[in-house]
Amino acid sequence: MTQWARFKSADGRVGFGVLEENRIVEYEGDLFDAPRPTGATIPRETITLLSPCAPSKIVALWNNFHALAAKLGKQAPIHPLFLIKPGSSVAGPGDVIQRPASYEGKIAYEGELGIVIGRHCRDVSESEAADYIFGYTCVNDVTAAEVLNEDVNFAQWCRAKGYDSFGCLGPVIVPDLDWSQARVITRLDGLERQNYALSDMIFSPAEQVSRISHDMSLLPGDVIACGTSLGVGSIKDGSTVEVTIDGIGSLVNALAASPGDLAPKSRRAFAA
Amino acid sequence: MTQWARFKSADGRVGFGVLEENRIVEYEGDLFDAPRPTGATIPRETITLLSPCAPSKIVALWNNFHALAAKLGKQAPIHPLFLIKPGSSVAGPGDVIQRPASYEGKIAYEGELGIVIGRHCRDVSESEAADYIFGYTCVNDVTAAEVLNEDVNFAQWCRAKGYDSFGCLGPVIVPDLDWSQARVITRLDGLERQNYALSDMIFSPAEQVSRISHDMSLLPGDVIACGTSLGVGSIKDGSTVEVTIDGIGSLVNALAASPGDLAPKSRRAFAA
Repeated sequence: MTQWARFKSADGRVGFGVLEENRIVEYEGDLFDAPRPTGATIPRETITLLSPCAPSKIVALWNNFHALAAKLGKQAPIHPLFLIKPGSSVAGPGDVIQRPASYEGKIAYEGELGIVIGRHCRDVSESEAADYIFGYTCVNDVTAAEVLNEDVNFAQWCRAKGYDSFGCLGPVIVPDLDWSQARVITRLDGLERQNYALSDMIFSPAEQVSRISHDMSLLPGDVIACGTSLGVGSIKDGSTVEVTIDGIGSLVNALAASPGDLAPKSRRAFAA
Repeated sequence: MTQWARFKSADGRVGFGVLEENRIVEYEGDLFDAPRPTGATIPRETITLLSPCAPSKIVALWNNFHALAAKLGKQAPIHPLFLIKPGSSVAGPGDVIQRPASYEGKIAYEGELGIVIGRHCRDVSESEAADYIFGYTCVNDVTAAEVLNEDVNFAQWCRAKGYDSFGCLGPVIVPDLDWSQARVITRLDGLERQNYALSDMIFSPAEQVSRISHDMSLLPGDVIACGTSLGVGSIKDGSTVEVTIDGIGSLVNALAASPGDLAPKSRRAFAA
């Protein structure tokens, strides 16, 4: 399956292309509009992967899996329930999740499937939706759990989930993923904490794209995070979260108390 | 006071500059980074004003005025309570507010002050915040009121307020506004419905910028909508909402049942 990646080269240039085992086959132009191969290939070990797209927004679903809804005692919603994580929250593979300054509380991981939008999309039907999906990626939808219910009158979803580096995406985008056969596996410091089938979703990717496109324009590169299922937990400072979906690969990010806590070399090690 | 505007010229070109009584003094480059005058002036009647900036996100506050908090019986929050309206929700002066397809319910206006960010801003103190504020504009923070509480388990703030054209901004950005002396006046079809002093804010603009910059990076052109006060109400299809702040001017938008309901000429009339 084709794996699209965005990268920074050794000299700091940002590019994109198709990731193969040991190299990137470089493309140029617009990833979402007929990109052209440059003819260059770049050795994998000389580049750093970036988030595979730069969304203007991440639309993040809550309560989209039957198993989690049952555990929480919640009815399945009649329309996708979502909050918006801003573009400024995006982190790439290997990037450090930064603990917010002056927040000492629990930080939770949520391993999820991400839908990457390929074309401007508004008021599309479920049967048309596939034409607007570019592909799929892994998401770690990070949450400052104690911020969420700090105010009794207003659930602070956007604040709790909107901090810089709380929207981890990657490592690549896969157009041809058969999500209905795939599972999301989340490991915390190597121990499996989530392992759920995407077939348990309440709203399928096509339903999500159709319904959310009736709520707002979705733009090329925007991401819908499909929501999580059982096994959400908290990340200790210094711990590493790995979200794996067969066919996409593993998205690895560690939580640091501050950006300086992990040296660049350690960050690269997490990404390897 | 200097009034910065963005516009579309008769030939469809997008530009920006300083709005004077009957003309625009055109600038080029980056509005937020040392823009240069082009030497051209353009007659006011030949251009259409656009939203004065193109934010990556609008951070929209709830419960930020003492008078409204008292009326709702809510305590003043200890931190700004906000949701995110996506960049795709932005509408400019004179633009039609589009009723979402298949939504028949109440649509509410909220006249507000908007803070326009001028520089990338993260973890700044209240005393530094003024350096990161480019200026102020008027906001109509439109809401599909019946979407908000459609699900008993999840208040749908981002969905109810995130529809395309529900983030009305303009007509201009004024850097030197003394907000502490200003009032927000909202008229519905010419009748005054809101008239409140900005001095009644719970979190001042500097406090908002400082505190929200601890929650996420704010980018040049991003807007913080400061929240509204008493007098919120619903807009009938075809009705016109005018949000006025002395020194900034009036932001006028009409609600249409569908984009075709108001012809371009009517749209221009609303903007005049």
